[in-house]
Amino acid sequence: MSIAIIAPSRNTRNWEELFERRFPEEKVWVWPDIPNPSQVEVALVWYHPKGELNRFPNLKLISSMGAGVDHILSDITIPSHIPITRIVDELLANSMDRYVLSCVLHYHRQFFRFDKQKANKNWDMSSPEIPVSVGIFGVGALGISASNKLHQLGFDVCGLATSARLHDGIKVFGLSELDAFVGSINMLVCLLPLTKETEGILNKDLFAKMKRGSALVNAARGKHLVEEDLLWAMDEGIISAAYLDVFQVEPLPREHAFWSRENILITPHIASVTNPEATVPLVMENIYRLRKKEPLLFEISREKGY
Amino acid sequence: MSIAIIAPSRNTRNWEELFERRFPEEKVWVWPDIPNPSQVEVALVWYHPKGELNRFPNLKLISSMGAGVDHILSDITIPSHIPITRIVDELLANSMDRYVLSCVLHYHRQFFRFDKQKANKNWDMSSPEIPVSVGIFGVGALGISASNKLHQLGFDVCGLATSARLHDGIKVFGLSELDAFVGSINMLVCLLPLTKETEGILNKDLFAKMKRGSALVNAARGKHLVEEDLLWAMDEGIISAAYLDVFQVEPLPREHAFWSRENILITPHIASVTNPEATVPLVMENIYRLRKKEPLLFEISREKGY
Repeated sequence: MSIAIIAPSRNTRNWEELFERRFPEEKVWVWPDIPNPSQVEVALVWYHPKGELNRFPNLKLISSMGAGVDHILSDITIPSHIPITRIVDELLANSMDRYVLSCVLHYHRQFFRFDKQKANKNWDMSSPEIPVSVGIFGVGALGISASNKLHQLGFDVCGLATSARLHDGIKVFGLSELDAFVGSINMLVCLLPLTKETEGILNKDLFAKMKRGSALVNAARGKHLVEEDLLWAMDEGIISAAYLDVFQVEPLPREHAFWSRENILITPHIASVTNPEATVPLVMENIYRLRKKEPLLFEISREKGY
Repeated sequence: MSIAIIAPSRNTRNWEELFERRFPEEKVWVWPDIPNPSQVEVALVWYHPKGELNRFPNLKLISSMGAGVDHILSDITIPSHIPITRIVDELLANSMDRYVLSCVLHYHRQFFRFDKQKANKNWDMSSPEIPVSVGIFGVGALGISASNKLHQLGFDVCGLATSARLHDGIKVFGLSELDAFVGSINMLVCLLPLTKETEGILNKDLFAKMKRGSALVNAARGKHLVEEDLLWAMDEGIISAAYLDVFQVEPLPREHAFWSRENILITPHIASVTNPEATVPLVMENIYRLRKKEPLLFEISREKGY
């Protein structure tokens, strides 16, 4: 049995090294150097070239190298009998927590405003803090972890999910209560999985319901956001600060309007990068389970899309 | 008995209103309109004009409007028998926690770097996070609260105080271990009270011991920092990011070098602003205690300076 790592956009040297060091008995090949495709039984993938997995006639498991699996499910050529797993890991959640907090605190303490005051050599002490009420789109493992950390720091937090509930002390609105959810917040954080239902969910209709001067964080997927609608909402004064880690096209093209917009913080899809130290053992655990025909950890539902 | 509010640099309207609403039986005057100085028994002060308190022959209590009392102790004309109290309050600590965290996360997630990448339309995903080990100068109420919050978010934290100890799970180095303290951190946060011993403590000698590329936060008092020594440390590459809320002269003069320096975030002394809702009741509690001749809350030691 061999493991194929297929992640054209990533440097996977540290993943390889970790397999070599911790699991020297495993054969690990890195795409495109796959000496014997028929031996590949596990594919560890991150935005693989569509159709590529069909080169492996004996493939038994596809594992995402991160929390999202949209890049796998969007390849319609993958046979439906092969199980797909994703990474759910505390270090990944901690990293996302810190990214979300860095954005919330940046907005709360008005660092965009103080950057401008600095440029103008202006000392204005008025209204030192913006009271922040955060709404989380997507209350899975990452969303709940971030909510708890925000709550500990004294921020109001609520969530939005398919159905209303109380989750770990956080009020979660149901989809039918969207207006009440949006009306109670002034900062929206998107941590949703990308599915047919959530694609383009951050759009003009939603922004039109938001309070003036609100903030937006998108640390999920670029396709959640209708990018021209954000520009509209910023022009209208609805969104006063945006924190964007993901984009419709990555790397963000040089001619894109976001680069030269004020009050947008751009990070290059690094909000939460999978740590191989934490995740290679999780992948191996699933390989052992596969061999023993035991239930896999964090297998996703193709129907739900996550 | 009357209360005099003396805070020339602050808008104290919300303090007055709160006294009127919550304690209508108290006579509250705002400097410079003090109709009858001999009736003033309590002075609530923030950077009062030196010597001014001697106009009140029956003064029995001086309360700072914030956590610091350096602005009171530096007035050598104040008789030594009048007790001085300060504000110790959870909201004040929470506000400082959030300021410190906003700086630590800004450094950890390299927002100065991503600002520059944005200006250059540059998509560079390498080294997405700086591992941060925070050292807190001053482990009083504010320092310990901030340390705990940082610890909860997974950051290494230690403190420095007169003598070594373990405080609420945080390792506190003693002054004699300064080199070991500085050697173990890459971000220094100053939350010290300003005293003769701590004035100018953030200086060239200290910076010379720090790791290259470190960060500095000063949310205490401007006089803790030798400002030209910070410029030297930044030129040398020792300090790569500075978060400054306080300055030798405030407002920061327009001709000051900090305004036009890269990698300095300037906020106008708003890291933690006393909330009258939380502190007026504390001041009143001390006034009741004074009347009943009971021990005061948060009375400071003139000898220690805090």
